[in-house]
Amino acid sequence: MSFGFQLEATAGAARAGTLNLPHGTVPTPAFMPVGTHGVVRGLSAADVRRTGARIILGNTYHLHLRPGESIVRDMGGLHRFTGWERPMLTDSGGFQVFSLEQLRTISESGVEFRSHVDGTWRRLTPERATEIQWDLGADIAMAFDHVVPGGAPRELAEEGMERTLRWLSRCREEHERLANGRTGAQAHSGDASTSSPAGRAPVRPSARAPQTLWPIIQGGTYDDLRLRSLEGILARGPWTGIAIGGLSVGEPKPVMHRVLETLEPGLPREVPRYLMGVGFPADLLEGIARGVDLFDCVAATRNGRHGTAWLPTGRINVRGAALKGSTEPLDPECDCETCTSVSRGYLRHLFVVEDMLGMRLVSIHNVRFLVRLGEQARARILDGTFDRWRREWLERHRPSAVPAEP
Amino acid sequence: MSFGFQLEATAGAARAGTLNLPHGTVPTPAFMPVGTHGVVRGLSAADVRRTGARIILGNTYHLHLRPGESIVRDMGGLHRFTGWERPMLTDSGGFQVFSLEQLRTISESGVEFRSHVDGTWRRLTPERATEIQWDLGADIAMAFDHVVPGGAPRELAEEGMERTLRWLSRCREEHERLANGRTGAQAHSGDASTSSPAGRAPVRPSARAPQTLWPIIQGGTYDDLRLRSLEGILARGPWTGIAIGGLSVGEPKPVMHRVLETLEPGLPREVPRYLMGVGFPADLLEGIARGVDLFDCVAATRNGRHGTAWLPTGRINVRGAALKGSTEPLDPECDCETCTSVSRGYLRHLFVVEDMLGMRLVSIHNVRFLVRLGEQARARILDGTFDRWRREWLERHRPSAVPAEP
Repeated sequence: MSFGFQLEATAGAARAGTLNLPHGTVPTPAFMPVGTHGVVRGLSAADVRRTGARIILGNTYHLHLRPGESIVRDMGGLHRFTGWERPMLTDSGGFQVFSLEQLRTISESGVEFRSHVDGTWRRLTPERATEIQWDLGADIAMAFDHVVPGGAPRELAEEGMERTLRWLSRCREEHERLANGRTGAQAHSGDASTSSPAGRAPVRPSARAPQTLWPIIQGGTYDDLRLRSLEGILARGPWTGIAIGGLSVGEPKPVMHRVLETLEPGLPREVPRYLMGVGFPADLLEGIARGVDLFDCVAATRNGRHGTAWLPTGRINVRGAALKGSTEPLDPECDCETCTSVSRGYLRHLFVVEDMLGMRLVSIHNVRFLVRLGEQARARILDGTFDRWRREWLERHRPSAVPAEP
Repeated sequence: MSFGFQLEATAGAARAGTLNLPHGTVPTPAFMPVGTHGVVRGLSAADVRRTGARIILGNTYHLHLRPGESIVRDMGGLHRFTGWERPMLTDSGGFQVFSLEQLRTISESGVEFRSHVDGTWRRLTPERATEIQWDLGADIAMAFDHVVPGGAPRELAEEGMERTLRWLSRCREEHERLANGRTGAQAHSGDASTSSPAGRAPVRPSARAPQTLWPIIQGGTYDDLRLRSLEGILARGPWTGIAIGGLSVGEPKPVMHRVLETLEPGLPREVPRYLMGVGFPADLLEGIARGVDLFDCVAATRNGRHGTAWLPTGRINVRGAALKGSTEPLDPECDCETCTSVSRGYLRHLFVVEDMLGMRLVSIHNVRFLVRLGEQARARILDGTFDRWRREWLERHRPSAVPAEP
């Protein structure tokens, strides 16, 4: 079977499982590095494989703009395009287009937005977002959702949540149509009002693995809206996975934790849960403790490019003068390519002389740091020591602390 | 024996040999990638190893300014600093400081120059250049030479050549002093007029492999000056290698070829010859045909960062619209990491979205292209088919041509 999830152990709400996808299996909990443009910024597919990542995420919005989904499709799909042969998930573009603020207008049919690349107006609808992801050919496609800002008032949060449910039905319908191989104009129209008579070469089965579609729970910071969203999603099911969106968008951490705790008992046990856009190291452990199986976040590579590295004790800026001449590894406890091959002093030197290798090496460490955190959590869940380990880990980890240097 | 060269075969003036150095052997002819700041720009030591490079070059001028030779020395030398365990050669800084033009003054004792990093005035003398390279700890150190511009008049070329010989004696004396372990103030003074009473921790033998010093032939484009330079060098020998400097600095290619042909018969057969700062692919083959064993040049990585890739048929700009959607490898004949893992269309996409991975992947290809050219030339020399192969290769290779694309 192409899509499946085996739950192997639990420790409180924390879960260890295995996600089966057409391009491979993903032991969970797991962190997914973000491959914005079909590439994890600055890293090759081989670099990412060496971090131990088993699944990566691609951004539909960015790939739609460049190179365009038809190019990716004609080149054999995202896996062949990027050289990443393991599982891949694409977001729906919802989060990106709703972040454009002044550059988009929303209606029931979809979103009109201005490309940040060339200023052209474009249109994303549930059908188009599904079709684009179909062309990209990821293992997992996400439903197109209406995302509202972190502090959104109840009315707006409710509107976004309800619309996301209606759009989910349209995404599902379109996804089934594509999966059933109907390639007529109707199947490929952007939405009901525009037809797309231009024919398309049928995709050969060899170039296209099966794809599954996951829904997204919305509802802002309102517990009852979140529960209604979940209810509506389950009513439209079954699903092979369920995502939680619209968190880590400015609300306080305790609020995010409360929403996760509210949702947890109602989420089907035998389906993986994906917390979108999260997180930092501590967020991973807090999410795992509340039953989350999958995470993604750009912070690992964004911080890496700025020279900020995560350590078990907190974080460190690699540019710091204290690292000059240091022969210590960046993180003596880490097994990544960076920590096992170069010193802090060399990394600092790379940032001082502005060689891009520095950005790459710190990104590799940060990605490995989160991937390994998932691996460690999994091992602790399997051997029954997760809760104590998590508490000790979080006590030791001081996100704002810079370790004292001689 | 730490330093040695075995000549294995010749084909006309072309030579195949093996250079033995403390950190490994180097089959020749060979291209040395340039590691300006102790890093081949944008590439990790592992990346460079995967190109098949057996030796790289570090720039004394750049490493003296950042991080400073004392930092590198205290961190265990360039090999440990950079994670590159194979042989390494450092230039003397002569070429760089003489390139500063308005920012330096020359005297018999040495060169005063202004740092391009912080504007401070610094001093490089034969003794200092030797001492810095000793601290850096490369396998091969280069003598400090007076480099003159490409079109230099005879008088200036003669002055530079004669001074380079006098400086060679001072470099050799200083190098012997360092090698004999004399660590007193005299041994570490910048030059005779300044003493350096500050003590230095003796370097443990384990951190320091033996180092050899190579002289540099100067004399501009004047055959008789070149021969006098060679004569003066041989009189100050013996040497484990001899470099030819001051070429590929603006003079026409036929002039460079003539100088190489003039020198070739007088160069000791059993010593490797290193043509500094050369070359492009065709330059390698022309140099090999005229008896050169070693080359270095920044063009491979500089072109790579600009998206220009070498191909057997010429070169190509990876940004070109013609590459959009192409599933072909960059160079179908190449075995590098880039050509065996991604397509032209993906490389173009990386440059379009300005992901630094593109610069890295094209740099890897270009370095491998030159390393492989050395390997191919060696195989052809060994099997006696070098001359014909070289002629055919050069006929096919059109440096300015961009291959036609559909």
